[in-house]
Amino acid sequence: MVRFGECDPAGVVYFPNYFDWFHQAMESWFEHGLGRPYAEVLQHVGFPAVHTEADFRRPCRQGEHLDIEIRVGELGKKRFRLDYRVLGSEGKVRATGATVCAVIAQVEGDGFAFRSVSIPEDLRERIKQFI
Amino acid sequence: MVRFGECDPAGVVYFPNYFDWFHQAMESWFEHGLGRPYAEVLQHVGFPAVHTEADFRRPCRQGEHLDIEIRVGELGKKRFRLDYRVLGSEGKVRATGATVCAVIAQVEGDGFAFRSVSIPEDLRERIKQFI
Amino acid sequence: MVRFGECDPAGVVYFPNYFDWFHQAMESWFEHGLGRPYAEVLQHVGFPAVHTEADFRRPCRQGEHLDIEIRVGELGKKRFRLDYRVLGSEGKVRATGATVCAVIAQVEGDGFAFRSVSIPEDLRERIKQFI
Amino acid sequence: MVRFGECDPAGVVYFPNYFDWFHQAMESWFEHGLGRPYAEVLQHVGFPAVHTEADFRRPCRQGEHLDIEIRVGELGKKRFRLDYRVLGSEGKVRATGATVCAVIAQVEGDGFAFRSVSIPEDLRERIKQFI
Repeated sequence: MVRFGECDPAGVVYFPNYFDWFHQAMESWFEHGLGRPYAEVLQHVGFPAVHTEADFRRPCRQGEHLDIEIRVGELGKKRFRLDYRVLGSEGKVRATGATVCAVIAQVEGDGFAFRSVSIPEDLRERIKQFI
Repeated sequence: MVRFGECDPAGVVYFPNYFDWFHQAMESWFEHGLGRPYAEVLQHVGFPAVHTEADFRRPCRQGEHLDIEIRVGELGKKRFRLDYRVLGSEGKVRATGATVCAVIAQVEGDGFAFRSVSIPEDLRERIKQFI
Repeated sequence: MVRFGECDPAGVVYFPNYFDWFHQAMESWFEHGLGRPYAEVLQHVGFPAVHTEADFRRPCRQGEHLDIEIRVGELGKKRFRLDYRVLGSEGKVRATGATVCAVIAQVEGDGFAFRSVSIPEDLRERIKQFI
Repeated sequence: MVRFGECDPAGVVYFPNYFDWFHQAMESWFEHGLGRPYAEVLQHVGFPAVHTEADFRRPCRQGEHLDIEIRVGELGKKRFRLDYRVLGSEGKVRATGATVCAVIAQVEGDGFAFRSVSIPEDLRERIKQFI
């Protein structure tokens, strides 16, 4: 449901909130789609966004019930792209978007340094099923 | 579920987000408890917070599943107080809070002026059942 | 300054916040660059985002002082594109982004209907100077 | 300046954002008042809110320029209270608030355990001057 606090004085969703929704959809997908709770996976690797974009086709208003679809658009060795569609309950596409995530791991012995790594094999197998 | 973006660098929920949760719980309660979708009620009256507070007892972490309980603490002629409890899935209280809302309506013919009004009788009857 | 509440458990800025910064930079630019406070301009026309994107090159951490540069990338009849660069105090580009805004006005006599309109001439002249 | 994205469909600031402002004011006060950047201090101790509250007297609207005053309300051994006042440019108090912060430090050798500690002496001396 679109929350009061997500809408702006024009009465529609303030657009940076779509990216928050995309990330929330990704977190739910890790837990319910991949069967690996996001918070647990983050103990080992991180997924910083390196690119993201969205196209807004029709506004979303307070109180509306929306669905967010998620699909794996690309699965590379060290990064993947997730594609999103925001659908109104009437079935029309309100917005589409995508996020390219890199995969990183903490450098041993340095809490603040990270390096690019390959997607863990087990996780890759699970992600593959959503292409 | 506690979202990644709701947590701060200390790994726990950034406290202003609790008030966002309280408001979201109120919106859900209007729809599912009172049977009156919040966005529809807002066509007639508004509920600005005049006071709010929270006590934080135990931190909430990313990925945790929480429940938010809502109770009507006071029901006056022109204002009401909602009391909240945030519960972890282990049953412990993580935080408690309260919000006092006034009831206002737009002044006829002036889009920016509001005046204090009584809670509509129909709404008051429904709210009463949650005291 | 990058705020504590803008950072996530990884200690870096949660990426949806960049789009909030972009919008804040646009609001400041209306006031200080175009000499027309954004809130005043909104009395007449609105600027919904129809597309937005960002590339994240280097993370931003809590407490850092950043600059956000804004440039007009395109100026059409009924839309314009703003390009953003987020710069660290060391001078390195942390992120780039862009937002395409449409121009709309409220339909007379219907508080919820909007139509696409041309950028007001006075505003266009001012915007032109930032191409 | 009150940002577009901080306002709700009623055209006024969504109240959870006041607590975000309070925390931002605290961060600025650490840097400019106490002369100790908040992000640096956090390397040693943390300041989780254990209680917070606010009274909202007059609404704040988009585009308004506000001041936030900060004062030390109480300075205990292991906690302190900060009092806030939000002032409009016309000088009227829009809201008041307070946050009680505990002081904690990480338990040696366990990244997720924290214990209550005394306010570091150097910091206490600096804080004292704002009572």
